[in-house]
Formats: sequence, structure tokens, C-alpha cells
Amino acid sequence: MNRLRDKIRDIPDFPKPGIIFKDITPLVKDPATLRLSVHQLLQPFLGRNITAVAGMEARGFIFGSLVAWELGLPFVPLRKPGKLPYDVQSVSYDLEYGSATLEAHIDAFDANDHVLLIDDLLASGGTAKASCELVEQLGAKVEACAFVVELDFLKGREKLKDYEVHSLLHY
Amino acid sequence: MNRLRDKIRDIPDFPKPGIIFKDITPLVKDPATLRLSVHQLLQPFLGRNITAVAGMEARGFIFGSLVAWELGLPFVPLRKPGKLPYDVQSVSYDLEYGSATLEAHIDAFDANDHVLLIDDLLASGGTAKASCELVEQLGAKVEACAFVVELDFLKGREKLKDYEVHSLLHY
Repeated sequence: MNRLRDKIRDIPDFPKPGIIFKDITPLVKDPATLRLSVHQLLQPFLGRNITAVAGMEARGFIFGSLVAWELGLPFVPLRKPGKLPYDVQSVSYDLEYGSATLEAHIDAFDANDHVLLIDDLLASGGTAKASCELVEQLGAKVEACAFVVELDFLKGREKLKDYEVHSLLHY
Repeated sequence: MNRLRDKIRDIPDFPKPGIIFKDITPLVKDPATLRLSVHQLLQPFLGRNITAVAGMEARGFIFGSLVAWELGLPFVPLRKPGKLPYDVQSVSYDLEYGSATLEAHIDAFDANDHVLLIDDLLASGGTAKASCELVEQLGAKVEACAFVVELDFLKGREKLKDYEVHSLLHY
């Protein structure tokens, strides 16, 4: 029995036929299991030199802000284009069909920041890799990336081979 | 001196000329002030019969999940259309130009839930009102709405006259 795995719901054929979507809403609706997941996300990094936590829009805002809160560290939102009001740094990256862009404020990090990146899901790794590049372009260091769920068969970890990756559940 | 107000940054002419955008990224980057804001958001509701916290995509995910965490309650994300993978209930509402839609999973709430709605900003109140309707359509009760920032001159509170509204900062 895995409490965490029991709270991830499989949704077949979303967002398109043949994909089984991992729905984390039952997890965030269960306070005890959410607490477990957040503490498992941050556990490897206790005592490490992490100075900021960044989360990818939108589900990464939930887990990222909770990890930052528990570590007592700044939270930095990495956002879809056009959402951040101040001057931004942007990174564009390829998706299976088309492309996507991720943005952060130019003053989001300090030069000495060691950043823990948080998202709910590591799939093909495009968003995560772009997030790492964005942190580095802003002069900070990526200390590690942590995910609730990793879809091993999409090989996102290979795209992140230059980084430490920590995932709670593997499919 | 107001610690909270000092961490809200004015961005002139965003998203369009004449608008002064209230940027909350300095607040979420400052752990002590973020802690203050979250505790001020939930303070009126300690000891009240709140059973779930809902947050509006996307900045409402940050404050909403932190309020839920501190209260030890379920967090429910209210999302833009097409993002939630399971069966959804939708509410559409008018904006100044065009319209918008907000969705929640049909099993997001229990019938006896008393819901605290959280967002960073109360502007004209369209999103907040739609969120209240969504909660009610799913059979739950809106106990109150709480915001970090309220733009008084946009009169969002009038649109929420049937609900209890709590805001930390007024402009």
C-alpha cells in the first residue's frame, strides 16, 4: 500500500486519446497525504545549500509554494508568457507539437541563489529543462529538480542529465 | 510602515496603458512577509466551520494552498477551461472585453463542505463571483472569500454582496 500512489488518479485519454493523465487533485484534497508528499519532496534537501524554491505554472505553484514555506525560503513562480508584469527573461522550447515559453522576472533570483525547482510531473522534460535554463540565464544555480510523479517511459530524466532529479512516484 | 504593503510592487501600464498592476512576486519571495500575509488571510476563520479551501488559477494556487496547509484542510484548485482532466462543472462570466470560464472537478467538494475561497486580488469581482457560483453549483457552501489585495475603486465587493469578504490591503 502506498498512500501517495493511492491519491493519484488515472484519467484515460486526457488530454488526447492514448494518454493516461496523472490527476493530482485527489492528493491536494487530502491534507495528510499532501503533507507526506511535500515532506518527501524536500527531505533530500534538508541541510543542503538551497536558498530559493521555484515552481512551474500552474500545478507547480501548489507544491513549490508549500516546499518553500516548509523550508522557510523564497518562492519564485515560473510563468507562461505575458503573465508576469515586470521585466522578464524568457526561454522557449519545443513540444511534441509546436513550442512553449516560460518566463521569470529578471530580479527573481540573486546571483548566489541555489535553486530547488519543483513541479508535479516530469514527463518528456521540456518544461523542466527550460526552467533550469531560465534559472541559469538569471545568474543562479540549479541545485536540483523535484517532482511528485515521473513518467519514466518518456525519458525526461535524460534531458535533465546535467541536474540532480528527485521523484516520489515512478510510472 | 506596513510590511505587507511594502512587498506589493506597482507596475504601471500592465497589462495595458492606464492600469497599475499590483505585483505580488516580491511578497512571495520574502518568507517572513508571506508568512504574515497567509496568517492574516486565515486569522478571521480560525475556529469557524471551514472544511475546504479553494484557490483560483494561477496566483490563487499559491495563497490558497498555503492557507489550506496551515488550516490542515483540503485544497481545491479552480481552473481555466480544459486544464482539469476529470469531469468538470463550468461557470462562464463576462469580462470587460469578452468572457472567461472557470472549472472545478465534479467531486471537488462534499455536500456539507463550507468553503473558504482564496485569491491574491479582488478587482471587479467577476472571477470571485463565478468561483462562488461554481462552489454552490457543486452543492457546497461559500463560507467567505479572502484576498491579499482589494482594488476598492473597481467595486468588486458589490458583486460579492451576498458573501463575507476579507481583504488585507486596500487600494
